[in-house]
Amino acid sequence: MSDTPCILCVAINGSLPTKANNPAVPITIAEQVESTQEAFEAGASIVHAHVRDDEGRPTSDPDRFARLLEGIREHCPGMIVQLSTGGRSGAGRDRGGMLRLSPDMASLAVGSNNFPTRVYENSPDLVDWLAAEMAAHGVMPEIEAFDLSHILQAHAMWRDGRLTTRPYVQFVMGVRNAMPVDRDVFDYYVHTVRRLFGADAPWCAAGIGPNQIVLNEWAIAAGGHART
Amino acid sequence: MSDTPCILCVAINGSLPTKANNPAVPITIAEQVESTQEAFEAGASIVHAHVRDDEGRPTSDPDRFARLLEGIREHCPGMIVQLSTGGRSGAGRDRGGMLRLSPDMASLAVGSNNFPTRVYENSPDLVDWLAAEMAAHGVMPEIEAFDLSHILQAHAMWRDGRLTTRPYVQFVMGVRNAMPVDRDVFDYYVHTVRRLFGADAPWCAAGIGPNQIVLNEWAIAAGGHART
Ligand SMILES: [Zn+2]
Ligand SMILES: [Zn+2]
Ligand SMILES: [Zn+2]
Ligand SMILES: [Zn+2]
Repeated sequence: MSDTPCILCVAINGSLPTKANNPAVPITIAEQVESTQEAFEAGASIVHAHVRDDEGRPTSDPDRFARLLEGIREHCPGMIVQLSTGGRSGAGRDRGGMLRLSPDMASLAVGSNNFPTRVYENSPDLVDWLAAEMAAHGVMPEIEAFDLSHILQAHAMWRDGRLTTRPYVQFVMGVRNAMPVDRDVFDYYVHTVRRLFGADAPWCAAGIGPNQIVLNEWAIAAGGHART
Repeated sequence: MSDTPCILCVAINGSLPTKANNPAVPITIAEQVESTQEAFEAGASIVHAHVRDDEGRPTSDPDRFARLLEGIREHCPGMIVQLSTGGRSGAGRDRGGMLRLSPDMASLAVGSNNFPTRVYENSPDLVDWLAAEMAAHGVMPEIEAFDLSHILQAHAMWRDGRLTTRPYVQFVMGVRNAMPVDRDVFDYYVHTVRRLFGADAPWCAAGIGPNQIVLNEWAIAAGGHART
């Protein structure tokens, strides 16, 4: 896989970090666009974006996502924009209100799992509704695989037409009470994506905190893509 | 593994089937004890039990479990009794009210996942409380592995002392929206149990409906145990 160019996806702010954690974290739309442009000029080709409200708290507000999308399209022509439908920024169908903006990609959880202190709930109905919205608006899903069954579920959804494009799979490792950072499991995840989606299927891996660099090293060496 | 005797676990009624589904399903405590005794005399060494209320609905009522336990201990001396703490029979800590009866074993979910129409919620707090109750009352857990991370989570809990005995792991396959019946995954589950818990660690597999016989064939051939 060494001739395939490595895609670099930049996650500019996530849903949780604040200026108190790190003064450099971009919070306003203007800061996010500026930060994305710097990453784009440095070679990133996908931006994974969350938005915040006026108090810096995570939100799924479609108007904010619209302003962010407009800013990135203007300043980073050709960059792939992936919007988060994750559960830290909203609940129920509010999580997918921005899909009608037709971003290039959006994150999609297809199962439920534990998080450090709670259940990350993605009910079957909500998963199907988010997938249908993505299909209706031409949005390619990035599957957030917090566990192995999520990869098989994404495959079942692709096979039966609930997903209309072959998804991009992201392995998420190192979330406490979900899947730890484990090399044997990582290798099996890669094997599973190739078995189900084909040897050329694109995938990447996210690690929490300092594990991101570990997962980038593993992913790049195994023919996957990288993210921040 | 072919010299290891195969353990047969009989699940006499589950939480859902009714007399309308199958007139032979044991619902009352007396019917359950009778049914268990027949299985015991036919060679079953573990009984996995749920109890029902007077209307035949699933319940976690400790008094009913106490009567069942007493009946089985009287009629099936030496049989291993495993009580269900599953979420179909109760919610929150009510699911573990029978653990103070010190059954030999109890089922334990250590993560969350999707079920056909809802989220199967096992919050980190509840998992830890159920595990602590099992440790306090000398109950061996059977881990209900609805997904791969549940096996790794059980291992983490054993390593850090939240589980005080090496658990018995059951792979659960064929639940819609959780892990399908997949031979490649099954083999990796077996590999993972051996890697984490040792080559001699006991395990079994449950398949929903007609898949049970498929999983029993796979499990017996691979050195695991069997259940109904
Ligand atoms: Zn995100
Ligand atoms: Zn729409
Ligand atoms: Zn059961
Ligand atoms: Zn107790």
